[in-house]
Amino acid sequence: MTTGTAMINPVALTQDLVRCPTVTPQEGGALVLLEELLAGAGFTCTRVDRNGTSNLYARWGKKGHARTFGFNGHTDVVPVGDLDAWTKDPFGAEIEDGWLYGRGATDMKSGVAAFAAAAVDFVTDTPPDGAIVLAITGDEEGDATDGTIALLDWMTAQGERLDVCLVGEPTNPDYMGQMMKIGRRGSLNAWFTFKGQQGHAAYPHLARNPLPAMARLMADLSAHELDRGTEHFDASSLAVVTMDVGNPTTNVIPAEGRATVNIRFNDSHSGAGLSDWLRAEADRVAEESGIAVEMQVKISGESFVTPPGPLSEMVARAVQRETNRVPEMSTTGGTSDARFVKNHCPVVEFGLVGHRMHAVDERVRVEQIDQLKAIYGRILADYFG
Amino acid sequence: MTTGTAMINPVALTQDLVRCPTVTPQEGGALVLLEELLAGAGFTCTRVDRNGTSNLYARWGKKGHARTFGFNGHTDVVPVGDLDAWTKDPFGAEIEDGWLYGRGATDMKSGVAAFAAAAVDFVTDTPPDGAIVLAITGDEEGDATDGTIALLDWMTAQGERLDVCLVGEPTNPDYMGQMMKIGRRGSLNAWFTFKGQQGHAAYPHLARNPLPAMARLMADLSAHELDRGTEHFDASSLAVVTMDVGNPTTNVIPAEGRATVNIRFNDSHSGAGLSDWLRAEADRVAEESGIAVEMQVKISGESFVTPPGPLSEMVARAVQRETNRVPEMSTTGGTSDARFVKNHCPVVEFGLVGHRMHAVDERVRVEQIDQLKAIYGRILADYFG
Repeated sequence: MTTGTAMINPVALTQDLVRCPTVTPQEGGALVLLEELLAGAGFTCTRVDRNGTSNLYARWGKKGHARTFGFNGHTDVVPVGDLDAWTKDPFGAEIEDGWLYGRGATDMKSGVAAFAAAAVDFVTDTPPDGAIVLAITGDEEGDATDGTIALLDWMTAQGERLDVCLVGEPTNPDYMGQMMKIGRRGSLNAWFTFKGQQGHAAYPHLARNPLPAMARLMADLSAHELDRGTEHFDASSLAVVTMDVGNPTTNVIPAEGRATVNIRFNDSHSGAGLSDWLRAEADRVAEESGIAVEMQVKISGESFVTPPGPLSEMVARAVQRETNRVPEMSTTGGTSDARFVKNHCPVVEFGLVGHRMHAVDERVRVEQIDQLKAIYGRILADYFG
Repeated sequence: MTTGTAMINPVALTQDLVRCPTVTPQEGGALVLLEELLAGAGFTCTRVDRNGTSNLYARWGKKGHARTFGFNGHTDVVPVGDLDAWTKDPFGAEIEDGWLYGRGATDMKSGVAAFAAAAVDFVTDTPPDGAIVLAITGDEEGDATDGTIALLDWMTAQGERLDVCLVGEPTNPDYMGQMMKIGRRGSLNAWFTFKGQQGHAAYPHLARNPLPAMARLMADLSAHELDRGTEHFDASSLAVVTMDVGNPTTNVIPAEGRATVNIRFNDSHSGAGLSDWLRAEADRVAEESGIAVEMQVKISGESFVTPPGPLSEMVARAVQRETNRVPEMSTTGGTSDARFVKNHCPVVEFGLVGHRMHAVDERVRVEQIDQLKAIYGRILADYFG
């Protein structure tokens, strides 16, 4: 379904990438592999590594061309989690019953494979009057401070540019063609430490147990409704992601507990406003309990939206022609590096079905990888046509 | 101050015992040493070892005598902990500035030494018309399943008996004569596991986060008032002692959380009743949250009380005459082997000042060991007088 002869098999390329151990921040050979492929197809490749994070910038066509189409994606993956719960080797890339298994199978080695394959085929079959850029990072799942940001910083310094950008993150909840992203919620993390005083469980009046305060604050934060959604956004959500004490005994009241909260927020909030709210809640529980509550906040990104326009319509057209479905223009889901790209050019996102991302037995339908490559090929043909 | 000539020096005996390395379940030579001493004074000694735990049963006088006074204690000790933090050899029994240092100095080799010395002196000076039993275990600090229980089982099987029993555990919080124990609260531990479904923090509707349920249950249990105390007991208390998830990432909603609760309960509760209440609370939170909540309970001991009467009054009298203080009849603190003895005969507890027990640089005032021996001697004289 691509405009030319399919030369690069995106499923095999996905398998090669899954087999690279790239838990953030390990490069694991993935960028080396991609650089070899792209350089062979005439792309100018530059490794833009920064502070231990590996990144790859690959451009076909003239630097600074007024028609420069960008793809952005990442090769790093989240940790495997409970290895015993996996039925397949997370780095084995085994295919069974039409599923390709492995950490990163959907998020997002298949997406990178699909746009790399589409771009190589496109420039090989129908060299465009313009430029195609692949900006691929090895740190999207971690702090992301030296990933796409480093690539964009480097581009600015080098006079490189993008006119539009498509991020290849998984965007479809259940089936191909269901959804594209025109924005993202913001995200922040808050780390809480509750400090009491250790003592013997039989003499609770001689100790101050920090855990009731920790349980109270986490229960209260979890029960709070942040909002009910806005024009382009779903409701904001808060997740308590961990609570830890590490007390091995049952007869000792511990001195300290720690808890972490992640908030995904829409455009009715700001990171600063939410930080203030969390601090006020922590202070309230500290006041009620007599337990000191320390808090550190990191805002990973504010919410943003690229309102529907030419770029989103072009992507939606390609998706519709390949899948016979009009994708919803959504702002749901996690953060992505689109939050950095949006400061440089219009950005939208379209990729695979993401419902197994970060989970045990992460997997992707092999025919959807082919389909995604075809969609990316249609978008390039439309953009440069 | 004893009724006869002081023949056995309880301080030197304590030193000999401290020098035996008896971290549970090691016998370390302590029971061998005591057996030699007691057999030499006419006690019939039997080692009642069971499943790797060493125990010593020593009786002076006729088996099954209607006037049989029992002492109960233990020679095992808790581990040294941070050896570098000790200023003295934990097994050196060094005396400095009137303090005898060592693991077990207060809990409770000095108590054992004091009652052994008092008993030997008493039967030597004024052989009573009755029997004196010393039931000494090598496992009170561990599981305690083959310690005093084994001694009591063996006694029942052999037709041995006690009319009353005094446990020599440290009972005074700050000074001699302050407190005796006429009962103990019960204790139980409950281990909870909250099982949800792992997923990406940005897609909370695709995961089921177990942590709000864990926080809710622990907050609710902590806030619940079990009771306000009873005639002989303080209020029961519940301590959340740990909550653990171990999720290193902020963008993954974890599959599971674990929490542990310890309850110290008085005679208005039973272990079974509290277990039922915990299960009902867990079920309620599971119902409200949709999170599976598993629970395991272990009841370490039920609460018990020997209401004030002849035995406690006799002990209080001896304490008062020796210290000029009327000891409070308390049920505070942790569990002790009195919880097993109480099924066989009235039991009370009196011993040393316990505020350094289980701590680094555990130590005891040497004059308090002499004082304790004198108190035990007075009690024997009173009982058989």
